[in-house]
Amino acid sequence: MMSKKFFILGSGNVAGHLAPAVVNAGWSCSGVYSRTLKHANALAERIGSKGYDDLSQVMSVLESDRELDIVLISLTDNALSEVARMLTSEISATVLHTSGSTPMSVLASTTSHGVFYPMQTFSKERAVDISSTPFFIEAHDDLAHRRLIELTDDLQITHVREITTDERIRLHMAAVFGCNFVNHLYAMAAEVLGDTGVPFTILMPLLEETLNKAVSHDPATVQTGPAIRHDQLTIDRHLAALEDNEKLYEVYRFLTDSIQSYHSSNS
Amino acid sequence: MMSKKFFILGSGNVAGHLAPAVVNAGWSCSGVYSRTLKHANALAERIGSKGYDDLSQVMSVLESDRELDIVLISLTDNALSEVARMLTSEISATVLHTSGSTPMSVLASTTSHGVFYPMQTFSKERAVDISSTPFFIEAHDDLAHRRLIELTDDLQITHVREITTDERIRLHMAAVFGCNFVNHLYAMAAEVLGDTGVPFTILMPLLEETLNKAVSHDPATVQTGPAIRHDQLTIDRHLAALEDNEKLYEVYRFLTDSIQSYHSSNS
Repeated sequence: MMSKKFFILGSGNVAGHLAPAVVNAGWSCSGVYSRTLKHANALAERIGSKGYDDLSQVMSVLESDRELDIVLISLTDNALSEVARMLTSEISATVLHTSGSTPMSVLASTTSHGVFYPMQTFSKERAVDISSTPFFIEAHDDLAHRRLIELTDDLQITHVREITTDERIRLHMAAVFGCNFVNHLYAMAAEVLGDTGVPFTILMPLLEETLNKAVSHDPATVQTGPAIRHDQLTIDRHLAALEDNEKLYEVYRFLTDSIQSYHSSNS
Repeated sequence: MMSKKFFILGSGNVAGHLAPAVVNAGWSCSGVYSRTLKHANALAERIGSKGYDDLSQVMSVLESDRELDIVLISLTDNALSEVARMLTSEISATVLHTSGSTPMSVLASTTSHGVFYPMQTFSKERAVDISSTPFFIEAHDDLAHRRLIELTDDLQITHVREITTDERIRLHMAAVFGCNFVNHLYAMAAEVLGDTGVPFTILMPLLEETLNKAVSHDPATVQTGPAIRHDQLTIDRHLAALEDNEKLYEVYRFLTDSIQSYHSSNS
C-alpha cells in the first residue's frame, strides 16, 4: 500500500512536534512551508521533505497534487487567517488547522476541511508524547472525518474527542488558565524566591501535589491558603514583603480578592 | 534507649500528617491539643496519645513534664499567636511552630524554640510523603538546633535547609503564588470547561507538561500563549466567550495585562 501523504504549513513548536510524529506513523511529507526558508528547510530535513517559502508556489503544489491526503496548517492564528484566504476548492486534500481558537469556518473556501487540535504546550527544548496528548477534532464533511480518524489512528492517539468550534474555544481558554496563566504564576513564585538562595526546583513536591490534588478532586473544593482562610495577618505580612515590587504586589492583591469573592458566592 | 517525646498543639491538616509521621519515626506523643476535644481525641487515638481541649491544663502539663523533648505547634497563624502568649520559660522542651509566615520571635517567652516549616500542601484526603517534603528550619538556640536535627534525621527528611524568618516569609509567599493561586486558576479552568462535557482530568497532560517545563527551565523563559504573543485576535475571542462571567473575564484580562507588562520590562 502506498503511504499517505501530507503537506505542512508551519515550522514552529506545534509543526515541529506534529510533522515528525506523522512521518513516524508511516506518512510521507511532500513539503514544509514557512515564511522563512531556513526554518522550512530545517524541519523538512528532519523528515525527508522539501522546504518552501513562497506561498503562491505552495498553493500551486497543493492544487495540482491529487495524491495529497492532508494539508496540515500549524501557523499562528494571524498567519492562519491570512493563508486561509488563499486556499481554493481546487485542493483535493483535506485541509486541517491545529488552532484552538480559530473557527473551522476559516477554511470554508476548500471542499474538505476540519480541525485537528492538540491540547498540549509544545516547545523546542522538550519532547512530547503525541499518543498521550488529547486531540480534539472537528470535521466539515465525511471525507475530512475519515481522514481525521485515519490520522489519529495512525498516530495511536488514545484520547480523541469530536467537539464543535465553540466548545474548542472554551477548551483553549481553559488551557490558557491552566497552562499560560499558571506558568506566569510559577515565574512570579521563582522571582519571589529570588535572593533567598532557594532554587525554584525545591517547590516541585508542592507544585506536583497541588496539581495531583486538583485533578483527583474538584480544584474549587481543595482551595487552601491565607486568602480562603481570610487570614489577614499572613496576607498583610506578604503584602508588606512585596511592597518594593509593584507588579507582584498587584497580582497578590488581585488574586487574593479573586479567591475570596469566588468562594463567597460560588459556595 | 528511651524514646523521645513530643506534645502537639493542633489537629488540622498539618498536625494530622506530621504527628503520625513523628510517631512512625519512633517518638511517643504525650498529648494532642485542639480547641475541639473531639478533634484532639480523634488524632490522639490514631497515634496512641491523649486529647486535651483546655489550654491552661495543657500549659501545666508542658511546664511540669521534664522528659518532654519537643512541643510542636501546628495551629492557624491566629491561634498560634494567641497560644504563644501563654507559653513560659518554665517549659523545658523545645517549642517549635510549623508556620510559614509567623516570625520565630513569637515564641520568645520560652527558653528553647525554633521553626519547623514543611513546604507542602496537606489535606485530609491525601497521604503525603513526609521524607520527600522540603523542611525549612530556624533555631533560636543550640538545644533547639540539636533537637531539630534529631527530628529531621529521625523523619529521614532528604531536604532540610536552615533559613531566617524573613527568608521563610518569602518562601511561604512563593508557595502562595505556586500553590494557592495556581489552584485557583485550576478551579477557573475547570469552570470554563463547564458544560462542554470535557472533564478537568483531560487537562492533566497539559498541566503536567507545564509544570515539568517550568521546573526544568526558568518559568519566565518558557512563557507561551496568546498574551505573550500579543495575539489580540485570540484574546478578543476568549474575552467575548467570557462576557457572561464577570469574575473569569476580569481574571483573564488582568493576567493577560500582567503577562504583557511582566515581559515588556523584565526582558
